[in-house]
Amino acid sequence: MSGSSFGNIFRITTWGESHGKALGVVIDGCPAGLALSEEDIQVYMERRRPGQSQFTTARLEGDKAEILSGVFEGRTTGSPISIAVFNKDQRSKDYSEIASYYRPGHADYTFDQKYGFRDYRGGGRSSGRETIGRVAAGAVAAKLLKELGISCQAYTLSIGNIKASSFNEEDILKNPLFMPDMSAADKAAEYLKALMNEGNSAGGIIECRINGLPAGIGDPVFEKLSANLAKAVTSIGAVKGFEIGEGFNASYLTGLEDNDSFINENGQIKKATNHSGGILGGISDGSEIVFRAAVKPTASVSAPQRTVNKDGEEIDISIKGRHDPVIVPRAVVVVECMAAIVTADALLMNMSSKMDRIIDFYGR
Amino acid sequence: MSGSSFGNIFRITTWGESHGKALGVVIDGCPAGLALSEEDIQVYMERRRPGQSQFTTARLEGDKAEILSGVFEGRTTGSPISIAVFNKDQRSKDYSEIASYYRPGHADYTFDQKYGFRDYRGGGRSSGRETIGRVAAGAVAAKLLKELGISCQAYTLSIGNIKASSFNEEDILKNPLFMPDMSAADKAAEYLKALMNEGNSAGGIIECRINGLPAGIGDPVFEKLSANLAKAVTSIGAVKGFEIGEGFNASYLTGLEDNDSFINENGQIKKATNHSGGILGGISDGSEIVFRAAVKPTASVSAPQRTVNKDGEEIDISIKGRHDPVIVPRAVVVVECMAAIVTADALLMNMSSKMDRIIDFYGR
Amino acid sequence: MSGSSFGNIFRITTWGESHGKALGVVIDGCPAGLALSEEDIQVYMERRRPGQSQFTTARLEGDKAEILSGVFEGRTTGSPISIAVFNKDQRSKDYSEIASYYRPGHADYTFDQKYGFRDYRGGGRSSGRETIGRVAAGAVAAKLLKELGISCQAYTLSIGNIKASSFNEEDILKNPLFMPDMSAADKAAEYLKALMNEGNSAGGIIECRINGLPAGIGDPVFEKLSANLAKAVTSIGAVKGFEIGEGFNASYLTGLEDNDSFINENGQIKKATNHSGGILGGISDGSEIVFRAAVKPTASVSAPQRTVNKDGEEIDISIKGRHDPVIVPRAVVVVECMAAIVTADALLMNMSSKMDRIIDFYGR
Amino acid sequence: MSGSSFGNIFRITTWGESHGKALGVVIDGCPAGLALSEEDIQVYMERRRPGQSQFTTARLEGDKAEILSGVFEGRTTGSPISIAVFNKDQRSKDYSEIASYYRPGHADYTFDQKYGFRDYRGGGRSSGRETIGRVAAGAVAAKLLKELGISCQAYTLSIGNIKASSFNEEDILKNPLFMPDMSAADKAAEYLKALMNEGNSAGGIIECRINGLPAGIGDPVFEKLSANLAKAVTSIGAVKGFEIGEGFNASYLTGLEDNDSFINENGQIKKATNHSGGILGGISDGSEIVFRAAVKPTASVSAPQRTVNKDGEEIDISIKGRHDPVIVPRAVVVVECMAAIVTADALLMNMSSKMDRIIDFYGR
Repeated sequence: MSGSSFGNIFRITTWGESHGKALGVVIDGCPAGLALSEEDIQVYMERRRPGQSQFTTARLEGDKAEILSGVFEGRTTGSPISIAVFNKDQRSKDYSEIASYYRPGHADYTFDQKYGFRDYRGGGRSSGRETIGRVAAGAVAAKLLKELGISCQAYTLSIGNIKASSFNEEDILKNPLFMPDMSAADKAAEYLKALMNEGNSAGGIIECRINGLPAGIGDPVFEKLSANLAKAVTSIGAVKGFEIGEGFNASYLTGLEDNDSFINENGQIKKATNHSGGILGGISDGSEIVFRAAVKPTASVSAPQRTVNKDGEEIDISIKGRHDPVIVPRAVVVVECMAAIVTADALLMNMSSKMDRIIDFYGR
Repeated sequence: MSGSSFGNIFRITTWGESHGKALGVVIDGCPAGLALSEEDIQVYMERRRPGQSQFTTARLEGDKAEILSGVFEGRTTGSPISIAVFNKDQRSKDYSEIASYYRPGHADYTFDQKYGFRDYRGGGRSSGRETIGRVAAGAVAAKLLKELGISCQAYTLSIGNIKASSFNEEDILKNPLFMPDMSAADKAAEYLKALMNEGNSAGGIIECRINGLPAGIGDPVFEKLSANLAKAVTSIGAVKGFEIGEGFNASYLTGLEDNDSFINENGQIKKATNHSGGILGGISDGSEIVFRAAVKPTASVSAPQRTVNKDGEEIDISIKGRHDPVIVPRAVVVVECMAAIVTADALLMNMSSKMDRIIDFYGR
Repeated sequence: MSGSSFGNIFRITTWGESHGKALGVVIDGCPAGLALSEEDIQVYMERRRPGQSQFTTARLEGDKAEILSGVFEGRTTGSPISIAVFNKDQRSKDYSEIASYYRPGHADYTFDQKYGFRDYRGGGRSSGRETIGRVAAGAVAAKLLKELGISCQAYTLSIGNIKASSFNEEDILKNPLFMPDMSAADKAAEYLKALMNEGNSAGGIIECRINGLPAGIGDPVFEKLSANLAKAVTSIGAVKGFEIGEGFNASYLTGLEDNDSFINENGQIKKATNHSGGILGGISDGSEIVFRAAVKPTASVSAPQRTVNKDGEEIDISIKGRHDPVIVPRAVVVVECMAAIVTADALLMNMSSKMDRIIDFYGR
Repeated sequence: MSGSSFGNIFRITTWGESHGKALGVVIDGCPAGLALSEEDIQVYMERRRPGQSQFTTARLEGDKAEILSGVFEGRTTGSPISIAVFNKDQRSKDYSEIASYYRPGHADYTFDQKYGFRDYRGGGRSSGRETIGRVAAGAVAAKLLKELGISCQAYTLSIGNIKASSFNEEDILKNPLFMPDMSAADKAAEYLKALMNEGNSAGGIIECRINGLPAGIGDPVFEKLSANLAKAVTSIGAVKGFEIGEGFNASYLTGLEDNDSFINENGQIKKATNHSGGILGGISDGSEIVFRAAVKPTASVSAPQRTVNKDGEEIDISIKGRHDPVIVPRAVVVVECMAAIVTADALLMNMSSKMDRIIDFYGR
């Protein structure tokens, strides 16, 4: 059980290593009749593409997503959608040295402990390239959500200690760090330049908002919408924390501060505030869903570090090659895609929740 | 799909509502030959029992766990272990009023939206009593882990802004808040008394440590040990955040600060620090696993609140009845139990990871 | 992984041993709002009850199904439905001898090989009493199907070589063997009496028909409706074969004989014949679904048999106690219940198959 | 939920349509360290290849399996193994006519009912080419089993009424029908020629034997080894029946005839006979496992048939193109591969069945 599948009805299975022949995903359970093209997917692939600024690696991946099955005459058929990206830039010689030692902050040691050996080329399965399958699947989920009037949007909330203090949606795509605050983005850029000069790296926080989701989606116990978002996001490499709504801050509030009053807004039941982050008891409450993911600093730094080699000897290493000083900007689209997958799956799971709706469905 | 099952090989299915006939759990996939008694389970049940101090509800649940199947002559048989707790104190009259309106911070509204109606007695399935099944199953998982020399221990790290500033393991069970720092526990008690007088409530943070787990446990992508812990913990009602190791703080560190150097300690590979919280790339690295859960303040407060009734009319309510001013102390054992379940499951899943170990297993 | 769960959305988990405290089932994923009472379930329990004729054991089980959760004010709530039957007649002394040897045709030896020991009281988990959970869950599934105008009906097609040669639905419940042909039932009764006198036993074939199922239910590859029926039925103890439509006979036909022509019947597409048994490519075709299960003769016979004891010594045994000379009549309701569970699950799974229906569902 | 995944720990997900870009499979949960090459897989692909005799279609598929991930330096890594076969011979013009009507015995009508439309090129997802993924995965499972000394072997037991009356293992690969009896193979060939001249087709029965499996594999209730074999085999297109050991014949036997006595053979517990087909109570008993699958005649026949078109008008059709007069020989390897997948999965699932073996495993 190597755990490469995610989701219940809208279920994805990703595969591939950093320097293998290809990477991809199989999406099983996507409804038939969704208009889908390779272009729909490519738009998302571009957002995780490196080489877009000085803060992402210069490696020109040019990842091109190919749909191999499940789409006919421009629409999904209900059959599994297989999407592959073939690796073109396999400069494995850059990575051969790391076969001999364990990089701090990476999974080299744990893979060896688990499997007895590892595909050491560029991190193999533990590489950030593993997210290609997630993004391809997320693009399909996002297309499905769009048909239902639902959107997911992620962005960089902070890089190190520099936090966006305003939210201008249009700014997000205007800066290479995907921050909704140009001024904060400028400061973060300065901070990153300084770190790069030291051969060091930074982390940050990603925030994601889901809009348009009706109330009633998600399940009460283990398949809580919040619990599935937590797993989906924490399963992304380098994510060390997850919170929804007030999150950790809720632990400092009192009940009277944290509770959201229900109100009647023009005949509709709404909440006066949204401390809950759009989920109550694991089920969407009709408000905007807001959650955050904490991303650790890039583990690959060029400054010297102490570690051990496979023989257990302590050595000093300096990691060469092309590495992002911060992975947060490239992880933004991954977080957004995982949110889309969780949301699409929860919507499909919810269709069988009420007997009268089922009778209605089959009575037609 | 109401999502009441959790785990892959060690798989639990919980059932029951606050004021139904009984609550319980079925554990499928527990290995045969584990010594197990009702007493083993009752010890854990007592830790989530209310009525233990002024900060937990006076309701005398006296929850008695009965093993209905899967154990023969004191040992598990490999068949599903069914454990039930029959409700004795079903004062449903206390709760009848809440049928008519939506309590802020509760799942009343979202259940109605999802299912069309709800079992309003004491919160029904969304009650904290749902955790009875989790704790019973966690007791079994903990017994299994003990046989392998592995322990999970959770405790209260903070209540509101009052944080434990020292860690004395023996103090944890000496104060009703389960804090590892008696001085902080005293201050937190004062804080809670003040809130109770106002009809208000508090939240807090729970920390959990897993010791004795070998390196190599967990899977690389969606079944990361960290991702399963995140889901397990975030699926507990009132949990709004999860973090592992440095967690959100990792987003403020640099790579050189956050990376843990590998060292040779008397011939064994260890880490000089443990910023990772014991997991690298989703797989245990042999260090102590440390994670935290943020718990929101109790939603049921007796001070007046504004909300709407089922007809959508805005009303002012005051929630009566017996409610904990803070649920953190009672949630401690739930967090610990979910950690035990995730860990036991990951250990069983890992047994098929290497071909040579499989040949060895069947070659005997 | 002891494999006690079945189904995808409508998912059941059974538990319990022949002579433990209780047996039961948890049904997760049953839609909210289905009218359900203990009486609905008891009707099915009675059909598997022993002591109804001279061909079923004299043991008075009097199994009484109790609903412990998931139903409120007469309707399912969407929460897991826990149903238990408490054992009353636990004469375990009858069974203590079998602890020392391996009964031919039973699972004693294989359980010992798998688990190292076994609950030997009445067969433990491998007893026919394991089907109590299946029948309780099947009663709920059947109630759900009824709301959609769908019925499942099983009956005894043959006992040994005596086969029903006519089909009179009203006869099925008029004879203790549940055959749709009174004349065949009489002959089978004679045959069984003769076998009982010899301390021997018989097998037979059960047939099941599902009516009212619309076309389009089931999935194309591994979750074929036929494949799930095959698993569901073959998972019942003593079932050694499964076939649908022409079944094994199809292997002797030519394509022109076996193919069902599509026809236009008053403006509706129908099939001129039903060799397929109502399923094409794993998906229901709108015709009656017809399948059969082959049941082996009861393994417990009182005539002497040779076997080995736990020390490997060959011995001659004679199995005492109350045993059915044929289990086919009591298995009829189990087959019917498994068919209902598979069908209900397939219907719920199918709701997310088409994008336009999903938009329609959420657009309301 | 389109149901394209199968297995619990050794879990496969197949994808692809007859005339899409490619078909393939992702195998998740294959242990690390298994020696594996494309040649290992190609050997199995060749066995399902058409164009090998006059009884299989002339279409030269030349299916070439490519491993895209999960193998490094000749060994599996524990990461998902993605295998693809790119379609070369996409003569879709041959199939365009079938878009307008529903072929008898095919899934055209049921797909349209389920999904609203279908990929009509060569049957799309319901084509026999869907089995490419099964065979590729089965080759990997078979390699794994070989390391444990376990083999699966399938062959043609009968074509129409012509049944192999002897079993000569070496004959199986010597005749294009894969029968273990050359004389029967000759008669069957004559029979098929006659049917081809009439534009008709035949079915048959496939038998499969699994040797070397230790006792104790499989689970007692829903994950019975027999139940999983039943599902695996019945999920293959055109399979209409499944039986194990005596199968349907068991229904005609008495208990004394059908029960297998346990005996002591040189200090080892064995069975004197094998009516059970190697499985008791769903768990392997150490004997050879023997099961059979009934395959219906090829639905595509060139002789005229009546059907309806999409407008519901009755028409007479004659199916053109290249079609096997019998699919049994090509299905032999598919049955064998599904058996290997089920067996490998059951072996991995069984590793966590006993506490003492787990302690032993982790104590090393």
